[in-house]
Amino acid sequence: MPAAPSDLTRVLGRCRQRVAAEVDRCLPRGEPQQWLYDPMADYPHRAGKAVRATLCLASCDAFGGAQDDALTVAAAIELAHCAFLVHDDIQDGSLTRRGGPTLHRREGVPLALNAGNALALVSVDALRAGCGRFGHRLSGRILEEFRAAAWRTLEGQALELGWRRDGVVDLSAHDYLAMVLGKTCWYTTIAPLRVGALIGSRGNADLAAMSRFGLFLGAAFQITDDVLNVTGGEAVYGKEIRGDLREGKRTLMLIHLLAVAEPHDRHALVDLLRRPAERTDEQTAWMLGLFLRYGSIRFAQDFARGVADAAAAAFPEAFRGAPHPDHADVIRDLVNYMIERTH
Amino acid sequence: MPAAPSDLTRVLGRCRQRVAAEVDRCLPRGEPQQWLYDPMADYPHRAGKAVRATLCLASCDAFGGAQDDALTVAAAIELAHCAFLVHDDIQDGSLTRRGGPTLHRREGVPLALNAGNALALVSVDALRAGCGRFGHRLSGRILEEFRAAAWRTLEGQALELGWRRDGVVDLSAHDYLAMVLGKTCWYTTIAPLRVGALIGSRGNADLAAMSRFGLFLGAAFQITDDVLNVTGGEAVYGKEIRGDLREGKRTLMLIHLLAVAEPHDRHALVDLLRRPAERTDEQTAWMLGLFLRYGSIRFAQDFARGVADAAAAAFPEAFRGAPHPDHADVIRDLVNYMIERTH
Repeated sequence: MPAAPSDLTRVLGRCRQRVAAEVDRCLPRGEPQQWLYDPMADYPHRAGKAVRATLCLASCDAFGGAQDDALTVAAAIELAHCAFLVHDDIQDGSLTRRGGPTLHRREGVPLALNAGNALALVSVDALRAGCGRFGHRLSGRILEEFRAAAWRTLEGQALELGWRRDGVVDLSAHDYLAMVLGKTCWYTTIAPLRVGALIGSRGNADLAAMSRFGLFLGAAFQITDDVLNVTGGEAVYGKEIRGDLREGKRTLMLIHLLAVAEPHDRHALVDLLRRPAERTDEQTAWMLGLFLRYGSIRFAQDFARGVADAAAAAFPEAFRGAPHPDHADVIRDLVNYMIERTH
Repeated sequence: MPAAPSDLTRVLGRCRQRVAAEVDRCLPRGEPQQWLYDPMADYPHRAGKAVRATLCLASCDAFGGAQDDALTVAAAIELAHCAFLVHDDIQDGSLTRRGGPTLHRREGVPLALNAGNALALVSVDALRAGCGRFGHRLSGRILEEFRAAAWRTLEGQALELGWRRDGVVDLSAHDYLAMVLGKTCWYTTIAPLRVGALIGSRGNADLAAMSRFGLFLGAAFQITDDVLNVTGGEAVYGKEIRGDLREGKRTLMLIHLLAVAEPHDRHALVDLLRRPAERTDEQTAWMLGLFLRYGSIRFAQDFARGVADAAAAAFPEAFRGAPHPDHADVIRDLVNYMIERTH
């Protein structure tokens, strides 16, 4: 059962293909091939959803840009995403990604870490190449968007990793949203949308309303990602199921559970979350049972629906000044896709 | 017993102070402080030798630049070095760095990896700020030097890590030099010297001879670093002694040993090097015994001397076109310092 309308599926598929070809074009070949250039190309060659690139291309389109104006920059966004994933998988000790073993399981941590750095460099190279057709001023603004997004991502990632390392459990939905704004929204939705609008409008778009829309859209995406991690089927989802529970990730479900659980359940849960070691299968099954019993999954799904509604409400303002707002239809459709997708 | 002449020690000390202040100025403050901004500042605040920054500043000086023209760019070089060290220590599982525990031992691998990425971003920010005073064309050339050095470093690092992961033992001195050219020379000597010359000459310096000099200088530096790792005193050297043996690093000493050892020793050694696990203290002590018995340390020291001689011979040509070649005296003195230093 496809969760997305067929139109959207078709548009996403076309975007994915165009961007995959451009990503491939951006990946350099060289030596040592087996220890650097091949490992580096691994994640980019596994099919992702290309949500970030699609947002960038459609935003460019809506703001009057030509088809290919933002293509290389969109590829740079997907490459930065791959670089982030390689390091994120090491940091989380994740087992599977995009349907295969994580890169550090294939290559070992040292070479995977190095390949992640190389992907970040390829992304910067692609970004500079993609900006070559723009003037100095517009290029500077696009680079600044990437730079800001990179900092926010590092901050959000540090928050999430710090919470886990130090066994932090006194967290609210507000804390979660602040972390997700950093870790996910800036590079997944806000920057792609803003950069697309900048390119399409040659620097003239008003970006204030875009950030607000991107925040809601990205939060809906991340909360749904967290839910799929505990409820999804691995073959479809592409990552190991319940990996977040094993890693003790501070998701909205977990934060809800900590807030509503009976004292004896909460006590046992806090004890489990404060252990530095990963949780066993038995323990994650017990946590999942609590999620179901206390309605934490339903809470997160309802929350995601609320955030998606806020995104839908913010959408018109974000594209109000766009000369071709109808070209942003795919972005509007993505709002629902974010919470209804199965992977 | 100081290994460097007192003049050089003084110049290095002055450079170190100026660059340390500039590095500190470049380090942003923000939140989460405890999980990102503080860990990020850890290595930059531990006193290094500032060899890279000194090469850049002195080269700028010799080619006619003013005192502060290259200061922020030199700070960017030291920050990139710190980023590299943080990741390198994770990759090698190193225990100590600059006299203290490595960052991943203090913060855990996930947060240290993230802090390393942040340092790379600070370095890029500093580089762009430092290039702000130059025109578009010179800035572009400096960025290109950094970009090329980053790629060569990733390639050299991949070679070294790949050799170890896959138990490669059929290596020659030529292979070692190719690896060191990538891993060490580009970002340690070649790029700092070339960038300094570019800034000092406002883009007019002839850089061909500089790369040759930098290669020899950097190789002398790295071979000596490898020797100090097995012969030095930890309090002075700042890293754990014999760490390279524990990690199975393919140093020139090891390559020599593999070439000259009697069959039964070589057989046992190869067996030890092909194990994925780290070597025990007993095993590294045995390896050190072989180094001494077969003259591998002496071989590497002689080789470093030969490479330093080649650097000294290449020095005049590298600075032939410089308007103030006498301002490069510190660089000439660094040739001997590279092989006579004790840390």
